[in-house]
Amino acid sequence: MIKQLTIIGVGLIGGSLARALKRADVVDEVVGAGRDMQHLQQALMLGVVDRIETDLALAVQGADIVVVATPVGAVETVFRSIARSLSPDTILTDVGSTKVSVIAAAQAVFGQLPKNFVPGHPIAGTEKSGVEASFAELFEGRRIILTPTENSAPQAITRVRAMWEQTGAEVVETGAEHHDDVLAATSHLPHLLAFSLVDTLAKLDDKQEVFEYAAGGFRDFTRIASSDPEVWHDICLHNRSALLKMLECFETDLDKLRQAIADNDGDYLLQVFTHAKVTRDQFCGS
Amino acid sequence: MIKQLTIIGVGLIGGSLARALKRADVVDEVVGAGRDMQHLQQALMLGVVDRIETDLALAVQGADIVVVATPVGAVETVFRSIARSLSPDTILTDVGSTKVSVIAAAQAVFGQLPKNFVPGHPIAGTEKSGVEASFAELFEGRRIILTPTENSAPQAITRVRAMWEQTGAEVVETGAEHHDDVLAATSHLPHLLAFSLVDTLAKLDDKQEVFEYAAGGFRDFTRIASSDPEVWHDICLHNRSALLKMLECFETDLDKLRQAIADNDGDYLLQVFTHAKVTRDQFCGS
Repeated sequence: MIKQLTIIGVGLIGGSLARALKRADVVDEVVGAGRDMQHLQQALMLGVVDRIETDLALAVQGADIVVVATPVGAVETVFRSIARSLSPDTILTDVGSTKVSVIAAAQAVFGQLPKNFVPGHPIAGTEKSGVEASFAELFEGRRIILTPTENSAPQAITRVRAMWEQTGAEVVETGAEHHDDVLAATSHLPHLLAFSLVDTLAKLDDKQEVFEYAAGGFRDFTRIASSDPEVWHDICLHNRSALLKMLECFETDLDKLRQAIADNDGDYLLQVFTHAKVTRDQFCGS
Repeated sequence: MIKQLTIIGVGLIGGSLARALKRADVVDEVVGAGRDMQHLQQALMLGVVDRIETDLALAVQGADIVVVATPVGAVETVFRSIARSLSPDTILTDVGSTKVSVIAAAQAVFGQLPKNFVPGHPIAGTEKSGVEASFAELFEGRRIILTPTENSAPQAITRVRAMWEQTGAEVVETGAEHHDDVLAATSHLPHLLAFSLVDTLAKLDDKQEVFEYAAGGFRDFTRIASSDPEVWHDICLHNRSALLKMLECFETDLDKLRQAIADNDGDYLLQVFTHAKVTRDQFCGS
């Protein structure tokens, strides 16, 4: 049971977490906190949170658990705003898509990593954003990756794990650097490619026609390009080295494909396409 | 009404066309033709075709309309197999994703472009392939692009148009080169990127984990990488110049994004991501 849960940043993820825990009936009061009063009032009106607060230092007072659910670029500022009023007994976690940078922010603000700080990242989301897109089922059957620091207390990890399990998610633990490498490959690079492709096509002279002729495959392929630009701007800059490493691998491989097409090297194309199809069919089904 | 429709290549597209026309009750007999007897027998067993034939020259005899629905790399060979037995009254069309190369194949085989030849391309499909994946509703609400040649007779165009309209599709006409440019952008390049990304990730040491941690966004983004490798091998080689042109645009733009990430140029990232999101939201909805 959580008496007071404070969620800083009540968007798709923060809002869905609040809804899921309310549905599971394991939280007494959810405090929604953030900079934008209008946005918070919408969360209150929707019944996603019970109380709202724009003063983050006040918002965390009395909380059992504080979840920072802002874009990752804002996490350090949020930590600074709450550092002095955060009780040492309060569990602090986050939902950021980059874990090394969030831990570095905590280190910078708190001096040493708090024992009740457990970084986390739910592998869930849609291309939509904002509290109006949140729903209680978002985390059902999805993975939550916790990346505890060397200072994270076992009881704090257990508490954060239990919170997420109430949403129907499966909780796993790994190291922050490994998390960032894996997510660069499966999430950050694909988002970058989708944004990049749509931007490229949108600069074509006949863009109107190009998009009108796009079929279902294109719609699926580019869905993630409808994601929140600010969120992804932050992720790209906060997972720079892992993302650049993956991007360079991709660019090298793509250029080999380009060369193969230019050289009419059908064998190479068939080999790459078949390897890709077999791998995807094996891991993703449909 | 079509007395005899011969479909050469009874896969997802050919099979779905047969099913749709049978459902609309506008065809007396569908002849399924191809090289692979086992495959044809399956189409017969499923009721997708009424008669099967591995001798293409025989299969087109007596047909009102012949639809070539093989991968585009096989189209010229098919044209050669049927050229001598095809009645000048029979309408000849195809469903290939590349139109310049199909027209060049017809030119090479027939000497001059037949007046009853109307190249076409349904902008429909799934990542699945084979007759077992075919369904009558595939073309409903989708576009069929016809790219008539300068020799295509108006009555032939009307006949092919009417056939497709019976499937619930909307038929439009454009030039073959323009078709190939537009499809390179919205279909051929995205497929290439999806295949390339999955291939790159499948070469990582921790590929097992990488794919296990992939979420819904990745599944959507890579769905087209489960498409038929042979079909896409053919398309890439048969729309080389348009695809290479688009791919070079994309590589240039992607490299600018890479440089911006390396330079911590957040403004550039935000500008590109926002442009992409706004464009996609405008044209694709969700």
